[in-house]
Amino acid sequence: MDFTAVFSKGGSRLTSSKIRELMQLAADPEIISMAGGMPDASNFPYQEIREIEDGWSDSERAAAYQYGPTGGYPPLVEQIAAYEAASGINTTGQQVLPTSGAQQAIQLVTRVFCDPGDTILVEVPTFIGAVAVFIGYGAIPAGVELDGDGIIPEALDERIAKLTAAGRKPKFLYTNPTFQNPGGMTLSQSRRDRVLEICARHGLPIIEDDPYHDLYFEGKHEDYRSIKARDTDNLVIRLGTFSKILSPGIRLGWMLGAPEVVGRCETAKQGEDACSSSYSQVLAAGYLKRGFVEPYTARMRKIYGEKCRLTLQRLASEMPDGISWTTPAGGFFTWVTLPEGADSEKLFLAAIGKKVAFVTGAPFHVDGRGGNKLRLAFSNSSHEQIRTGIARLARAAREILS
Amino acid sequence: MDFTAVFSKGGSRLTSSKIRELMQLAADPEIISMAGGMPDASNFPYQEIREIEDGWSDSERAAAYQYGPTGGYPPLVEQIAAYEAASGINTTGQQVLPTSGAQQAIQLVTRVFCDPGDTILVEVPTFIGAVAVFIGYGAIPAGVELDGDGIIPEALDERIAKLTAAGRKPKFLYTNPTFQNPGGMTLSQSRRDRVLEICARHGLPIIEDDPYHDLYFEGKHEDYRSIKARDTDNLVIRLGTFSKILSPGIRLGWMLGAPEVVGRCETAKQGEDACSSSYSQVLAAGYLKRGFVEPYTARMRKIYGEKCRLTLQRLASEMPDGISWTTPAGGFFTWVTLPEGADSEKLFLAAIGKKVAFVTGAPFHVDGRGGNKLRLAFSNSSHEQIRTGIARLARAAREILS
Repeated sequence: MDFTAVFSKGGSRLTSSKIRELMQLAADPEIISMAGGMPDASNFPYQEIREIEDGWSDSERAAAYQYGPTGGYPPLVEQIAAYEAASGINTTGQQVLPTSGAQQAIQLVTRVFCDPGDTILVEVPTFIGAVAVFIGYGAIPAGVELDGDGIIPEALDERIAKLTAAGRKPKFLYTNPTFQNPGGMTLSQSRRDRVLEICARHGLPIIEDDPYHDLYFEGKHEDYRSIKARDTDNLVIRLGTFSKILSPGIRLGWMLGAPEVVGRCETAKQGEDACSSSYSQVLAAGYLKRGFVEPYTARMRKIYGEKCRLTLQRLASEMPDGISWTTPAGGFFTWVTLPEGADSEKLFLAAIGKKVAFVTGAPFHVDGRGGNKLRLAFSNSSHEQIRTGIARLARAAREILS
Repeated sequence: MDFTAVFSKGGSRLTSSKIRELMQLAADPEIISMAGGMPDASNFPYQEIREIEDGWSDSERAAAYQYGPTGGYPPLVEQIAAYEAASGINTTGQQVLPTSGAQQAIQLVTRVFCDPGDTILVEVPTFIGAVAVFIGYGAIPAGVELDGDGIIPEALDERIAKLTAAGRKPKFLYTNPTFQNPGGMTLSQSRRDRVLEICARHGLPIIEDDPYHDLYFEGKHEDYRSIKARDTDNLVIRLGTFSKILSPGIRLGWMLGAPEVVGRCETAKQGEDACSSSYSQVLAAGYLKRGFVEPYTARMRKIYGEKCRLTLQRLASEMPDGISWTTPAGGFFTWVTLPEGADSEKLFLAAIGKKVAFVTGAPFHVDGRGGNKLRLAFSNSSHEQIRTGIARLARAAREILS
């Protein structure tokens, strides 16, 4: 039968993105992929996982393979709250909801806040995976300007005021404050207070998506204190994930915030997958309880930091003049700027020919800019792959710029 | 801040169900729960799971803990197609999409087909978890009559014609054809052809949700041949699940059908959880590949069949006159009918007082009926719990009926 006539308006909005089409070209196993934001698979905490599984009581093992409550495996909910409290967040009166990755948390809040035509405020550039959700639910992302210290408070204030005056008051601000994906910039601590003050004044909830929080190469944990830790108006819904501190394959994240929001997301989640993987939840509860996060992230900070420094060093040695890149203080990416007018999609096609892949910059921008930008992930490449990959990229760059 | 003013219309539809409120009362651990449709946790295939994990190569282990493609772990997609083909389904030209439980598959097809106000045809009674999704997306479920052999074809034909004439042509038929939840009835093989013919004539897709398929107590596998196996018009989207043949805690199901539908669901899934748990997918691929389904389900058919017979025998011995129940040929439930005018919610409250729980019948009905019905699950209770639970239930029934 012909289904296209019976698809919903929502269903018709769901079309494959340009970036997914480009990524099809990168499937060749000989290609060195610096595209996806994947953690280092050669360094997952396999030993810790085995130790937790071997330590399971009969009832924990049964819980790991049985259905669980939509609201989460209770010991995990407790451990997440304790983990967040240890970072200075006041979890009293807040609800924690485990989700199937932070991706599901983004989707749940979108569904709960947005009808088609509603506006959402996002950073320029911002995480592609969030924009795809917003557009999939018919919401319209509006951009707010960043600089090296993250969101520019004056630009934020003005943008909210203008959109509100135009009858398009945003439903929330979506922000990736720490080692931003893709730009790598971090919202400075003083600006976090300003952003909170501005959003409180306008009555705008903040979705703080903070996956790279523990993966700093410089400073210490306190230097990256969450926006939620300063939130006295209960404005912030904080999203966390096990993808970067344990494993992304277990698909487990969480949201933490006002129970009237998180509880409604829990009701939506009931219909979406009934509960997140019980195996993942029982595993993650054990991982937090045994205190594995800090030693594992300490190890990974060193590993990612070394990969980052090597990437920056190879870029400096190999890339032709006129190309610049960020020096990230944490996370998985460096954000590269080609000369004005150069096209990173053209570079992508040349790079694929030389067997190296990255992600083009335009899809991260909701305002049509970013055509000369690209995101380079160093997280899941070996040192050898970084060396070879950047040499190939530099050859492709010389080719398209000459 | 006050969030209620900024929730979406969709978000405002998400309210906690009556049934969830009742279930809060059943949280006392002394209560014998014959409520949830849970598999027998004391008989999960733990040895098989351990054997698969121990047999993983380094690359399989890495795949189990890394992000995977939204379309599914390729060896799993292949194994599911082979598993369905072995049941007589022609999988050529069809797409298989692993989902986070069949629950997510229901949600994805709803999103792809339905806008608020659209009509969906469902059985009366039908699976509560599906109705909650339909309503959550603003769709309106319309009921079609069942008898002991499932959907009554004449009633289906008439219902579609009348709804279409009224400008409410349903977007699809949602059916649970085998050991139906909650009623336990099975759509007869001859009626499967009639239902297909009627839906083809009206151009109505069929969502065939078939979780209990392998758990028959009578007959053989071929007696429960899927609607999809007869589908020459490519009308049927078939939903399957690992919840009953491996473990529900791994949250893994699949959909199989026309690529233009399943591909759109895949795009929607991208924003919902990026991919289903890689651990679950790599585990399930190994489970199918090693041929564990048939010996495990053979064992479980025996275990569930014994529980079912004991349940029916105890009901016959203990229950007061005027109460009847079905004799299921498979699945997890018997469906109980109280005398006309009796209220199963009243019985529920009396039963909770005696420390046994079930699910009341009305929420399974989209037409306001079912107040004197209830669903009794025998799947996750021991023989001792079944004996004690039914004795308690019978005491509660005598109390409310006297």
